[in-house]
Amino acid sequence: MRFDVFTLFPTLIQPYLEESILKRAIQRGLIEVHIHNIRDYTTDKHRTADDTPFGGGGGMVMKPEPIFRAVETVLGIPPSCPLILLSPQGRTYNQDIARELATLPQIALLCGHYEGIDERVREHLVTDEISIGDYVLTGGELPALVIIDSVSRLIPGVLGDPDGAIDDSFASGLLEYPQYTRPAEFRGWRVPEILLSGNHAAIARWRREQALLRTWQRRPDLLQKASLSDADRQFLERLEQQAGSSSLTSDQPDSTYPPPGKEIQNP
Amino acid sequence: MRFDVFTLFPTLIQPYLEESILKRAIQRGLIEVHIHNIRDYTTDKHRTADDTPFGGGGGMVMKPEPIFRAVETVLGIPPSCPLILLSPQGRTYNQDIARELATLPQIALLCGHYEGIDERVREHLVTDEISIGDYVLTGGELPALVIIDSVSRLIPGVLGDPDGAIDDSFASGLLEYPQYTRPAEFRGWRVPEILLSGNHAAIARWRREQALLRTWQRRPDLLQKASLSDADRQFLERLEQQAGSSSLTSDQPDSTYPPPGKEIQNP
Repeated sequence: MRFDVFTLFPTLIQPYLEESILKRAIQRGLIEVHIHNIRDYTTDKHRTADDTPFGGGGGMVMKPEPIFRAVETVLGIPPSCPLILLSPQGRTYNQDIARELATLPQIALLCGHYEGIDERVREHLVTDEISIGDYVLTGGELPALVIIDSVSRLIPGVLGDPDGAIDDSFASGLLEYPQYTRPAEFRGWRVPEILLSGNHAAIARWRREQALLRTWQRRPDLLQKASLSDADRQFLERLEQQAGSSSLTSDQPDSTYPPPGKEIQNP
Repeated sequence: MRFDVFTLFPTLIQPYLEESILKRAIQRGLIEVHIHNIRDYTTDKHRTADDTPFGGGGGMVMKPEPIFRAVETVLGIPPSCPLILLSPQGRTYNQDIARELATLPQIALLCGHYEGIDERVREHLVTDEISIGDYVLTGGELPALVIIDSVSRLIPGVLGDPDGAIDDSFASGLLEYPQYTRPAEFRGWRVPEILLSGNHAAIARWRREQALLRTWQRRPDLLQKASLSDADRQFLERLEQQAGSSSLTSDQPDSTYPPPGKEIQNP
């Protein structure tokens, strides 16, 4: 799969590609990432890529001409693949969109910066607009990396362990069950006995129920879209019936987790 | 404000701090970012930071001892500031949480990796758990940078332009209005005449209505929490009444924007 990234700050993108799983995926030819500096497509001697907004107001707006020139030079007219603008105004990114993008041979990512991007780019050039969440970032570079990272790990062969991508949170539509590794006891805190039992069926059942329990506690909204078995539904019904009782928390009480909306205390 | 980041991959964090707005904020003493390599707190000769999960299954789990040792060495016992685990299982990050964090003198960010992190870290060490969105990433490093970037820009003085942070999407609870810069005409596409009018009151009203319109079209869920005037409410009521009519789209039809859920076409 090929990613083309259009940005005014290539140095915010490049180093992340030179480490860890993306580096190996590139070396193994599973993904290609091409970074294009929009400033290289300006035509004035000051290499102007931004200007003040019409109508006044603070900040600078990215100019249309260098962006059109960069995209059309690299991708042709019309662009030969989807061109996704990273902006807080796009549709909210999630694992379903990651899976959708991972089926494509090529996508292009356009990173906004400054106060915004000339609206004509949005109207006449980009084909999709994605937000990675409801918060304001300095630019689209971190969102572009989020998309490259999350999409790449869905491409067959990118994760060394073929089981890796399947057990993760959201892959099944549920939050992940608790994980434990050695030592079996640390500071008096023991791992749940069932995980030491060697009873694989019981372990699988415990993990599934923990994933259901955690999702029910923290993100009940996810349960509506999750793929659930009859046994899952019965377990969730029991949870609903027992709501408020201390028997909910199974082996591992989740009580140290701040509930959604809890304010962090300033120490 | 001080950020302490605990990670197995410091090189995924450091380069982003050496560019753009964060670099200037650090140089000007407005923020400090201290990166701690969890592997430096292992005690065996192989510097083992991860191990296989109890109960079987693919992938590796981050061991508890190096994490406890790193955090307690840097932040004391108990930790002297909130310790936030970046994980898909946390509360969903948004601009309200960014504002909440920006009021603190110090926060620490713990980056998960591999298949997960030993549950005892979550139960007995971290004080908060944040997810930047419903998608699976290789590790917590990009989420840590998302938090550092979004929180830093709320710290007074970090943005050169004092108006910058205020007009952005989500700062007002609405998506941002369309922005335009020179040229006034590009490929036959002209900027809306009102922005060239010099009538500041009319421009302000147009922008507010465009922000309302765009939010209503793309993210109506945001309107429930937005701070709205009586005039805003009347404008939204008119939109509701006209729903379905072509008069909705004002000067700048938004028709090229893929509606939420639209599939990207494979060209």
